[in-house]
Amino acid sequence: MAPSPKIPVGVVGATGLAGQQLLLALVDHPLFEVRRLAASSRSAGRTYGEALRTEGGGTRWSASERPPASLASLAVEDAAAFDPEGLGLVFSAVDGEAARPLEEALARRVPVVSTTSAFRYDEDVPLVLPPVNPEHADLVQVQRERRGWKGFVAPIPNCTTTGLATTLAPLDRSFGVRRVLMTSMQAVSGAGRSPGIVALDVVDNVIPYIPKEEEKVERETRKILGRLQGGGIAAHEMKVSCTCTRVAVLDGHTESVFVEFERPASAEEVAEAMRSWRGGTEGLDLPSAPARWIEVHDDPYRPQPRVDREAGEGMTTSVGRIREERLFDSGVKYVLVSHNTKAGAGKGAVLLAELLHARGLL
Amino acid sequence: MAPSPKIPVGVVGATGLAGQQLLLALVDHPLFEVRRLAASSRSAGRTYGEALRTEGGGTRWSASERPPASLASLAVEDAAAFDPEGLGLVFSAVDGEAARPLEEALARRVPVVSTTSAFRYDEDVPLVLPPVNPEHADLVQVQRERRGWKGFVAPIPNCTTTGLATTLAPLDRSFGVRRVLMTSMQAVSGAGRSPGIVALDVVDNVIPYIPKEEEKVERETRKILGRLQGGGIAAHEMKVSCTCTRVAVLDGHTESVFVEFERPASAEEVAEAMRSWRGGTEGLDLPSAPARWIEVHDDPYRPQPRVDREAGEGMTTSVGRIREERLFDSGVKYVLVSHNTKAGAGKGAVLLAELLHARGLL
Amino acid sequence: MAPSPKIPVGVVGATGLAGQQLLLALVDHPLFEVRRLAASSRSAGRTYGEALRTEGGGTRWSASERPPASLASLAVEDAAAFDPEGLGLVFSAVDGEAARPLEEALARRVPVVSTTSAFRYDEDVPLVLPPVNPEHADLVQVQRERRGWKGFVAPIPNCTTTGLATTLAPLDRSFGVRRVLMTSMQAVSGAGRSPGIVALDVVDNVIPYIPKEEEKVERETRKILGRLQGGGIAAHEMKVSCTCTRVAVLDGHTESVFVEFERPASAEEVAEAMRSWRGGTEGLDLPSAPARWIEVHDDPYRPQPRVDREAGEGMTTSVGRIREERLFDSGVKYVLVSHNTKAGAGKGAVLLAELLHARGLL
Amino acid sequence: MAPSPKIPVGVVGATGLAGQQLLLALVDHPLFEVRRLAASSRSAGRTYGEALRTEGGGTRWSASERPPASLASLAVEDAAAFDPEGLGLVFSAVDGEAARPLEEALARRVPVVSTTSAFRYDEDVPLVLPPVNPEHADLVQVQRERRGWKGFVAPIPNCTTTGLATTLAPLDRSFGVRRVLMTSMQAVSGAGRSPGIVALDVVDNVIPYIPKEEEKVERETRKILGRLQGGGIAAHEMKVSCTCTRVAVLDGHTESVFVEFERPASAEEVAEAMRSWRGGTEGLDLPSAPARWIEVHDDPYRPQPRVDREAGEGMTTSVGRIREERLFDSGVKYVLVSHNTKAGAGKGAVLLAELLHARGLL
Repeated sequence: MAPSPKIPVGVVGATGLAGQQLLLALVDHPLFEVRRLAASSRSAGRTYGEALRTEGGGTRWSASERPPASLASLAVEDAAAFDPEGLGLVFSAVDGEAARPLEEALARRVPVVSTTSAFRYDEDVPLVLPPVNPEHADLVQVQRERRGWKGFVAPIPNCTTTGLATTLAPLDRSFGVRRVLMTSMQAVSGAGRSPGIVALDVVDNVIPYIPKEEEKVERETRKILGRLQGGGIAAHEMKVSCTCTRVAVLDGHTESVFVEFERPASAEEVAEAMRSWRGGTEGLDLPSAPARWIEVHDDPYRPQPRVDREAGEGMTTSVGRIREERLFDSGVKYVLVSHNTKAGAGKGAVLLAELLHARGLL
Repeated sequence: MAPSPKIPVGVVGATGLAGQQLLLALVDHPLFEVRRLAASSRSAGRTYGEALRTEGGGTRWSASERPPASLASLAVEDAAAFDPEGLGLVFSAVDGEAARPLEEALARRVPVVSTTSAFRYDEDVPLVLPPVNPEHADLVQVQRERRGWKGFVAPIPNCTTTGLATTLAPLDRSFGVRRVLMTSMQAVSGAGRSPGIVALDVVDNVIPYIPKEEEKVERETRKILGRLQGGGIAAHEMKVSCTCTRVAVLDGHTESVFVEFERPASAEEVAEAMRSWRGGTEGLDLPSAPARWIEVHDDPYRPQPRVDREAGEGMTTSVGRIREERLFDSGVKYVLVSHNTKAGAGKGAVLLAELLHARGLL
Repeated sequence: MAPSPKIPVGVVGATGLAGQQLLLALVDHPLFEVRRLAASSRSAGRTYGEALRTEGGGTRWSASERPPASLASLAVEDAAAFDPEGLGLVFSAVDGEAARPLEEALARRVPVVSTTSAFRYDEDVPLVLPPVNPEHADLVQVQRERRGWKGFVAPIPNCTTTGLATTLAPLDRSFGVRRVLMTSMQAVSGAGRSPGIVALDVVDNVIPYIPKEEEKVERETRKILGRLQGGGIAAHEMKVSCTCTRVAVLDGHTESVFVEFERPASAEEVAEAMRSWRGGTEGLDLPSAPARWIEVHDDPYRPQPRVDREAGEGMTTSVGRIREERLFDSGVKYVLVSHNTKAGAGKGAVLLAELLHARGLL
Repeated sequence: MAPSPKIPVGVVGATGLAGQQLLLALVDHPLFEVRRLAASSRSAGRTYGEALRTEGGGTRWSASERPPASLASLAVEDAAAFDPEGLGLVFSAVDGEAARPLEEALARRVPVVSTTSAFRYDEDVPLVLPPVNPEHADLVQVQRERRGWKGFVAPIPNCTTTGLATTLAPLDRSFGVRRVLMTSMQAVSGAGRSPGIVALDVVDNVIPYIPKEEEKVERETRKILGRLQGGGIAAHEMKVSCTCTRVAVLDGHTESVFVEFERPASAEEVAEAMRSWRGGTEGLDLPSAPARWIEVHDDPYRPQPRVDREAGEGMTTSVGRIREERLFDSGVKYVLVSHNTKAGAGKGAVLLAELLHARGLL
């Protein structure tokens, strides 16, 4: 039997850091084929290769992997005027306030998978981490109907939420999560390049604040771990509190987590719950899914962002230093590392599209 | 009236990083005058200037400030055979397991102020942060009597404890501290130079573990904030839990703190309690004391280790991002920066000696 | 006798990194008093304290030292409409292409000392490093007359030129410099903050290119070491070639220099020529001049930017690793460190103003 | 036809950084199979997995790639007593002064390929960079005969020499190299882990000195580019001068090179000479050889160590910023990046072994 033809997709916001990661995650993808690219009017009308070049002869390309050669000659269209006709899906990685109107215009016509926060908190918009809450994806049907759109918007969570919600999922199922206190040490790539984090702020330094980040993580974690219910998501009742900081790390967010449980749990049981967790994607054979969603380390010096961020090709969350937390009646503390521009951005969005496809939603 | 003659002091462990910071803090000191230096047998018999030189022509000196010129020609004695005769006080910054027997031998003869952990947890040994628990210092009298020593040992706390206990002190007085969850992002200088942290571990990285550090902070904080009682210290009943990490910062430990109170407190009241706190050193006119022990920032991007570590010439703890912690009935979260090799080591030890002098204990 | 009243000065471009360094160098200055500040229209109409604040509640301030408290309430004027009436001198640290018309407009009225490159290469504009070529300053008289301006423009050199030209000056006088090959490892602060160097480009990295930098250093070095002659500067005939790179250092440019001489010279003679050099500022008692312009190290591990940039309060160039260069008939190689935002920007400009004052040119 | 059985090899110094890189380069190697491991007596008698563990539960493993799982249970033998019986080749990555006697003892019995400098400068020992001087390898026959050894020692060059000599090779052939002035910005991994570079020396810093490094590069470059002649190597007459520095980069040495030619050459001709160069390994089909030995960039911001070190899986030298050097009658300047622990250590040694095999010398 001949393989199904690939779904033609477009990438809007293709020149930014998240857009670049999207394109890398789509190289030789078995389901999707990048047909069209769009970016701001500054880049429109140039080839993708040209659009990546800066005035001085440098490049906007930020990833460690080289840009996909096959896309260099593809024309970049103006995102503001992008017509998705003929595409089966659009990935959006648009910056800032332009995201909401732009994604809405696209979603009226085709499904949109987005790395932006524009729609994340809308009632009829699911916030899906495929291994954690795949069933939430079905909410796009409600969204479609309620809004009268041909497509829909399905956003991925913030990159700092990803590792946290992934590790909390098996703990909540096994022990019930009551309260979470998290301090992040985030990589500079999360801020992108325009303007991004200025080097003179991170050399020999820690920046103790990332605007809006803490609110996002607190809100998104509860939504992701919530229940699909009556045309919306009933947020989980757990309480989440964060302090988000920036450190001189290129890629890979590190998070120090203290979590209180409803029910008793030893450190060993917690490690085992994480190790044995297969998530809601088991059997789906999603191309971007890693062999395991969580890798648990016994070495107390792990996880480290530089050493562990590429685990599972950037899709596995690495956990270590699991210790019982005696401040709570039951609880643990641990440290996690999650790849912010892979699991937390481009590749995470492609994984979500794969899930939508597997559930027949594309 | 002529000024009192200065107290002649010795510094044992003078070539290590903490010893260097001690010597810097003693330059032109109004009360103390460095008369003698000691270090390991490797350095003994050489001048201090020679002892700082490495085989390849480099230097063991690690501080930003240059080595005190007046000490370059002072002879370095063998710490193991150091006779404190004629000295009024010895500062100890000895590494490792040698510290305990060495400090004991010295303390039989003279008062010893130490940056090491050798005696910190002994029942009759006070652990004094001068602004926080100056009255604990009197425990050295009990120690002296009980052990039959002419001198005593008075250690300073671990460098990570310093900022935490300093900021908790006014909060405990005003609101009662019940529980503390802290994640540190510690500077590499804290590990010194032999062997210290290897560069290839911190470039583009975070190390999620510092051996023994968490236990020290948890135990010391409760002792410092405890009460002097019946020939010992009754530890504070608060619960403290830490995750200590290392980041690519030279000096200045950053700590993300979540604290639960016994009594209601708004973020503004917490800020005010810290701002107005003068500590137990008021009126003592200690030469190494800063104008204020805590500086509170409104700018959410502060404190930053590189920017704020030198506040109060390295003796002020900088605090920012004070927010109410809704996970607790009453509580706040905040970020602090404290200079680990000044307040947390050399200069902190000199401050303690100043306090001992002010209380007539030298 | 009463002290002379201070000269009232203005600072245009006061909110940028070089402007901030200017203001720090002018705190409690014995000759100059900052009366007025100007910046882009975005900042105009606000106080300096307000203008430093960013949208999110952060600050544009980039220096390690805190902003001068006395200036916080001073109004910031619009640079484009700045009227220098009443000022004796204006310091300009304006960014980009606006610099040339703006400095011209000011120089028609008052003397202008500039950190920008706008006028550096004009024939009748001296490029003065006070210890190296103080006599070039007199060219401002020619400039004034020729252009019919009441004031003049006196720029300082590029921050990378400063250390190089300073160290070459005594060598040229003693041995004759024929060729110079230099590789720089430059600090990130040199690029400022808007946009500056993006953190993700310097973490675990070296950037091998700084636009226009090499041409500036090559041209400026020859002009500074040239001779005042017939209403202009005859450039020195030495040949200079550079490769300029950026490394993850906050402040302090490091330069690896290979230099060929006209006449024989041993490494020891070169060290001695640098050590004994007092420059053309001897006897002038300039407030910002350090005790010595060059400090020579024997320790082969020096100079290091973090350790040596503050030598002479940021105004001394540190040199080490002087070795005979056997590739040339006569020559040496050495490494230098020079503070790019002090000697190479703000404080360097104030030093030049001091020289102009000492020579009666203000 | 059945494939030839693999040559059984041993790795001595297996726990150090270079030894680790050797083992990674030998994973699933088509010619060699790791049968035995040796290290210092501290590790002897433990499995390799155990030997990598540190006291505190951490690991000595330093590479980004994970340790080869298949070796974890292999016993580590005592290097001092290692008997190579049954092995066809031993790789040596032994530290320090032990290297020479140990490699000699081994070479009396079997061929030894070494990453150390112990034998590099002996007259009858070739210093081979496979693409540059493969014919030098035959000198091992002379060595064997002259010393009466059954095996021989074939060392690879210093990691800083590798990129320099590789790029000079096509230039020397095409234009004749007369003089080379090089400044390196070297990665911290080159110093290994015991003791390695201390983190507090590289944060916000450059170290301007690496003991013995400059002499090695100067001497080795001339030997590699020399001619095999009468039972030894006649060194190339070019003059080489270096200043070697250390920067906060994990892997990948950056070198700024100025080179003078005997004959005229434009920048374009130089780029073309590098681009078209296939080296002396063409047609040999060495498994570790990259598709091209040199990659030339037009983007002036390249090469960068973090971005380009993995070119050719760490075996390609990346070159950029080729400009004519007007200080010489003919010459160029350029910047190169070479992977110090792959091309310059473990994988480079495996490549040399492959060459020896291809030339029938094993």
